[in-house]
Amino acid sequence: MDEKELEELVKKVVKGEIKFHEVEEYTDGDSELATEIRRKALERLTGVELKHIGSYTIDANEAMAKNIENMIGAVQVPVGIAGPLLVHGEYAEGEYYVPLATTEGALVASVNRGCSTITESGGAHVRVVWDGMTRAPVFKLPNAREALKFLGWVQEHFEEIKEVAESTTRHGELIEIDEFLTGRHAFLRFRFDTKDAMGMNMVTIAVEEAVKWIEENYPKAKCVSVSGNVCVDKKPSWLNNIMGRGRSVVAEVEVPRDVVEEKLKTTPEAMAEVNYRKNLVGSATAGNIGFNAHHANIVAAIFIATGQDEAHVVDGSTGYTTMEVTEDGDLYASVTIPSLNVGTVGGGTRVETQRECLEILGVAGGGDPPGTNAREFAEVVGAAVLAGELSLVAALAAGHLGKAHRLLGR
Amino acid sequence: MDEKELEELVKKVVKGEIKFHEVEEYTDGDSELATEIRRKALERLTGVELKHIGSYTIDANEAMAKNIENMIGAVQVPVGIAGPLLVHGEYAEGEYYVPLATTEGALVASVNRGCSTITESGGAHVRVVWDGMTRAPVFKLPNAREALKFLGWVQEHFEEIKEVAESTTRHGELIEIDEFLTGRHAFLRFRFDTKDAMGMNMVTIAVEEAVKWIEENYPKAKCVSVSGNVCVDKKPSWLNNIMGRGRSVVAEVEVPRDVVEEKLKTTPEAMAEVNYRKNLVGSATAGNIGFNAHHANIVAAIFIATGQDEAHVVDGSTGYTTMEVTEDGDLYASVTIPSLNVGTVGGGTRVETQRECLEILGVAGGGDPPGTNAREFAEVVGAAVLAGELSLVAALAAGHLGKAHRLLGR
Amino acid sequence: MDEKELEELVKKVVKGEIKFHEVEEYTDGDSELATEIRRKALERLTGVELKHIGSYTIDANEAMAKNIENMIGAVQVPVGIAGPLLVHGEYAEGEYYVPLATTEGALVASVNRGCSTITESGGAHVRVVWDGMTRAPVFKLPNAREALKFLGWVQEHFEEIKEVAESTTRHGELIEIDEFLTGRHAFLRFRFDTKDAMGMNMVTIAVEEAVKWIEENYPKAKCVSVSGNVCVDKKPSWLNNIMGRGRSVVAEVEVPRDVVEEKLKTTPEAMAEVNYRKNLVGSATAGNIGFNAHHANIVAAIFIATGQDEAHVVDGSTGYTTMEVTEDGDLYASVTIPSLNVGTVGGGTRVETQRECLEILGVAGGGDPPGTNAREFAEVVGAAVLAGELSLVAALAAGHLGKAHRLLGR
Amino acid sequence: MDEKELEELVKKVVKGEIKFHEVEEYTDGDSELATEIRRKALERLTGVELKHIGSYTIDANEAMAKNIENMIGAVQVPVGIAGPLLVHGEYAEGEYYVPLATTEGALVASVNRGCSTITESGGAHVRVVWDGMTRAPVFKLPNAREALKFLGWVQEHFEEIKEVAESTTRHGELIEIDEFLTGRHAFLRFRFDTKDAMGMNMVTIAVEEAVKWIEENYPKAKCVSVSGNVCVDKKPSWLNNIMGRGRSVVAEVEVPRDVVEEKLKTTPEAMAEVNYRKNLVGSATAGNIGFNAHHANIVAAIFIATGQDEAHVVDGSTGYTTMEVTEDGDLYASVTIPSLNVGTVGGGTRVETQRECLEILGVAGGGDPPGTNAREFAEVVGAAVLAGELSLVAALAAGHLGKAHRLLGR
Repeated sequence: MDEKELEELVKKVVKGEIKFHEVEEYTDGDSELATEIRRKALERLTGVELKHIGSYTIDANEAMAKNIENMIGAVQVPVGIAGPLLVHGEYAEGEYYVPLATTEGALVASVNRGCSTITESGGAHVRVVWDGMTRAPVFKLPNAREALKFLGWVQEHFEEIKEVAESTTRHGELIEIDEFLTGRHAFLRFRFDTKDAMGMNMVTIAVEEAVKWIEENYPKAKCVSVSGNVCVDKKPSWLNNIMGRGRSVVAEVEVPRDVVEEKLKTTPEAMAEVNYRKNLVGSATAGNIGFNAHHANIVAAIFIATGQDEAHVVDGSTGYTTMEVTEDGDLYASVTIPSLNVGTVGGGTRVETQRECLEILGVAGGGDPPGTNAREFAEVVGAAVLAGELSLVAALAAGHLGKAHRLLGR
Repeated sequence: MDEKELEELVKKVVKGEIKFHEVEEYTDGDSELATEIRRKALERLTGVELKHIGSYTIDANEAMAKNIENMIGAVQVPVGIAGPLLVHGEYAEGEYYVPLATTEGALVASVNRGCSTITESGGAHVRVVWDGMTRAPVFKLPNAREALKFLGWVQEHFEEIKEVAESTTRHGELIEIDEFLTGRHAFLRFRFDTKDAMGMNMVTIAVEEAVKWIEENYPKAKCVSVSGNVCVDKKPSWLNNIMGRGRSVVAEVEVPRDVVEEKLKTTPEAMAEVNYRKNLVGSATAGNIGFNAHHANIVAAIFIATGQDEAHVVDGSTGYTTMEVTEDGDLYASVTIPSLNVGTVGGGTRVETQRECLEILGVAGGGDPPGTNAREFAEVVGAAVLAGELSLVAALAAGHLGKAHRLLGR
Repeated sequence: MDEKELEELVKKVVKGEIKFHEVEEYTDGDSELATEIRRKALERLTGVELKHIGSYTIDANEAMAKNIENMIGAVQVPVGIAGPLLVHGEYAEGEYYVPLATTEGALVASVNRGCSTITESGGAHVRVVWDGMTRAPVFKLPNAREALKFLGWVQEHFEEIKEVAESTTRHGELIEIDEFLTGRHAFLRFRFDTKDAMGMNMVTIAVEEAVKWIEENYPKAKCVSVSGNVCVDKKPSWLNNIMGRGRSVVAEVEVPRDVVEEKLKTTPEAMAEVNYRKNLVGSATAGNIGFNAHHANIVAAIFIATGQDEAHVVDGSTGYTTMEVTEDGDLYASVTIPSLNVGTVGGGTRVETQRECLEILGVAGGGDPPGTNAREFAEVVGAAVLAGELSLVAALAAGHLGKAHRLLGR
Repeated sequence: MDEKELEELVKKVVKGEIKFHEVEEYTDGDSELATEIRRKALERLTGVELKHIGSYTIDANEAMAKNIENMIGAVQVPVGIAGPLLVHGEYAEGEYYVPLATTEGALVASVNRGCSTITESGGAHVRVVWDGMTRAPVFKLPNAREALKFLGWVQEHFEEIKEVAESTTRHGELIEIDEFLTGRHAFLRFRFDTKDAMGMNMVTIAVEEAVKWIEENYPKAKCVSVSGNVCVDKKPSWLNNIMGRGRSVVAEVEVPRDVVEEKLKTTPEAMAEVNYRKNLVGSATAGNIGFNAHHANIVAAIFIATGQDEAHVVDGSTGYTTMEVTEDGDLYASVTIPSLNVGTVGGGTRVETQRECLEILGVAGGGDPPGTNAREFAEVVGAAVLAGELSLVAALAAGHLGKAHRLLGR
């Protein structure tokens, strides 16, 4: 396309004659070009020069095929590195460098301090204690007694439903269907093993197929919505905390007293007290789902760096931190994250910069056997969250929180 | 620095003789160069080529000064544009183009459909109904009766505390101190007007200063942590939903029946039913804080695009959506977001790409008078969340959710 | 004992030479007499005549053996009768008269109106959808990975644990052990079928025995408390709402429009609106566990009348009410009570007046086969709660709440 | 009335020719007689002899006027006495004997042990930290921006609304109106000082009057329900925990180590550990509102004994218990009860047996000045709850829970 043609298209977009999402129709499906046209049109519409947004190196055609619509370019989120972080998991073993994409000053430095503390303490022990991506359609029945029968029928036909659901996916396996009843509403919480994928879309498609089959074979059950908010996706939820979703992870470390004092500039007693009065009593006072200091910060920074669904930061914020003084006077610390929705394939994991971040961690792409990469990744995230908690709670115990921010000029 | 010197530094970082955060000491504080050195070292440590992460255009020296440590480059998150979105707020008025940074396919298309629906319906009406950034230190007193006296003392000395707190900030104003008592724990929830800043750091520094003064003047009160988890920051919380935090926003629109049918391919009745059975009954069944479909998706995509604190997606996920059929047979829809933590100055808002996104919205930098830019921004976010809810609930009502994802090849 | 001896004992109790709980030692274990002595002593200590408290007809010796200590007499709670209430359950079938012990004026009248409405509508359909009494000890392990192993070990030894636990009880059967992990805390939620007993004490004793066996066979697991608050007993809890406890009950009715209008003086539309705006939106706004109008009122009044554990009103307050206008313009209403802890044997059910109330319902004592009486009872309570909701929501819809109370002079 | 006439009436009630609530029409309003007739009719209808239910001494005419409808007699709940309990409050001072009405064996003994522990430790210190009975009607407005205006208008007209509301009551004073907005729903949470009354009915009547005035003067606001579940009455609620309702009470005691060991047969360390792992970590794991061991048990037993609204046990179950080892090695323990709804006048407090129980506590009837009796009562309840927590947590720490129940033959 020559410049004049391009200019014509830009003008038409500005005038609204061509809509943003129609531009590809005029570029032979070239999204790289369409992105430029949209960006130029938007510059004129708003009077803003989009120099940096236009300076991207990722493949727009790939992105437009899978990750974005109406693309105009990309934002750049700075990435810092924390580590080495020594992790002993079932899948992860060894030292990891953790990429963190954030614009919150002091966060990388803080996590880095925690990593150093953990590594010097012999490493964090981590386990994935539960695994499964869920989706829960809501069905309306004529009445509750019919809904109850329906729930029984579903369990009786589990194998058929499983076959239908799994026909839509190469990797996903339906593990179970948990059932909930409220009045005449029946909620079926489908749980899948999605291997290395976070799996939300895979699961949605599979469940839609299952729903179709169910409605055909049990006509009294009318699916009102393929998601009935009992899944629970991207809303903080006690159900997820109690039953788990995605990967449930627990990470822990025992930090010797002298390491606490040297690295963290405080004492095990002071940290246990902060954890008790803030993370437990404080959260209980405020009605929080989330008995921690800032799980969300670490989850968010890793998620953006590695192309996870950024709205899943919500689910990753509801966990627990415990800190206790051991009989030997050392510090025992743990984090429990009930709902960590991570994957190493699909979604944003294939965008070039994000994939590089996964490669830094050694977990890009599908694992062998399937599922092992995502679990290794989950374990490293768990350890990194633990690092973040150690560092922030120590800063609070030492009275240094604002100081850190002040030094960084914020 | 010539290549050989650089190579020497890289080697030392690889060997661990220079730590990541010490590199600037060897580059005369040049973070651009230090970022390159760290990246190269990391490439060798992990055997991964970081071509794209190294391809950034934002100013590393600026970023390292304020937004990141141990920088190695940047991730690129694709940005799509939704709109025009017609907004009638107290601060926002007119058509907006909304930048969304995401890797979740179909999201921009979905929000765009919602924007189009709203605009065709005459626009969304939005209000900021509450404003204030909070931080709540936890104090330990000898006992509860002393804690009670302490709370009285704090209110009596509000003006002095205010003076001390405000001495640390040019813009922040202490509005009130809410008080909570659990046993002998006293929580003081400081609430500030932070104008155009999201303000969390400003408030932390101010509160630390106030705490120092309080401890000096009321020696029996020992501050255990400047954040007592009653703030509540980055943990889902009933306290925030009930009392508000950041900007509390309500957005609404009345969509004529024919627009529902043409744009959203469903009916007001079907949408109201999905909202009732999913967002209300479903969320009530699962113990959610969050009676909505996917507020978090829209909040996350705008937050990343505009340099907001990405972990605040958590706080932005706990809101309410209502949908009702009006007496005239149209659709009334609203979203209520109790805790939207947004700013147009500070934090990541100054990173070049993010600033361009704020400029697209016309809300970059400080407003005149102060605070008006952030509030205008909050109103637009509220309207965009409403757009997202309309579109997703319609897709669920029409049974099209998975289909959208399937078409996009996921 | 002659009067002089009695007088001597009273004096000693007044002086504190004999403590309240020691009086039986001086009355040859006669609790009737001891109760009199304590009462007289208390009269002197407080200067209050306890004429009515002393006027009881229940057997003090029986009560002191099982239900009370330091007895001084009894309070009389007035009992009113509501009904007939037509119930169609799996266990309950036919018309029931419901005894309600309360001092809250208008409550019996209100429930009675609801019963009449239900009966005229052809009766309430009720189901027990889940059954099981639970107790969850908390174990502390050296660390989380050990706790995880422990949880696996417990499942492997389920049969042995079951044998040990059931050795303490004639009727109780251990059904399953649900497991929860937070850091290095392992919670084992034992679930029993307790037949006609509410079963909390039976379960506690069985679990204590199981805990002893577990600690012997898995020495690394230290039971910190036989109740770890994951049971969850007498605290409102999302876990109970999600997983059930005691008997989970759902009751429903379809009330023809003309019955709504004649009996309840309002319309299906108005009732559905109150339910939506109050029980759903209102409860969601306030952070309630409990999306209903006043389940607790009916549960409390029946529980006191029938000798249930009155603190279990807490657990019975967290349910759901739905009200919808059907396609035919009638009213569909349901209540879902996740945690109704009822029994027809044990506890207060043997006290004479309470037993009479159970007999009125035809569910006193053990059922044949075991468990059927308690379930029949649970179904009737479910229907009565539904009656209460219908009546109160109708009163609110018609604007008559305060009026009812005003007429009754309160 | 002679026996034959009575027999005739009984027969007619049995046949359904006279309904239960119509009997007084045939007895010249004599409820004593009507109660007998209903009871006899019920005996025939059910074939159950109601000997004990008929053996009451309370005044049926009084009860039927204010506390009950369709009365057939009374249940007798055994009352035990715990104490003396030494209390140091703002209103309560000295030793109290606490009447507990319960059929749960071991409860009185347990509370008694706690009372003894507290008294020997120098007494419990108690404070009422907040006071106010609330009712929150829900209004529907045309839209949210109108709802926002409405909320402003309400505050502007507070004095007029106050005058209208207070015109319905001699004692109640409207203190403030808290406001909540969800979409186009406006919730007005009226808070009253109700002096010695629990006040729910007083407040409902006052609010109904206020609502009438509001609707007249702001026609766009339509009150859908005088209770919008933001009150929050008889549903567990975070709003009540955060903002308080009824009387918010905190009670505390410092128990010397030797008293812990002698009286409670355990150590401060063991009790603090149970409290941490059960009441905090356990409750956080299960999603409880209620970080305590069994507040509800004590609240329930006192409430039934003293004629409180028994469904308010729900509200009294959501509190906090803390236990900590002091620097001197003693035990510091506290309970915080956010929502204790108690009164010494009105409701069931006038029933003869219940009034005697209030007299035992020295708090029957209205205080001088008004409100002091109810507050004194609240303080004693707080101290008794503390006693119950100490005793149960100690039993759990010592591993004696089931043993207590076993010894009592249950």
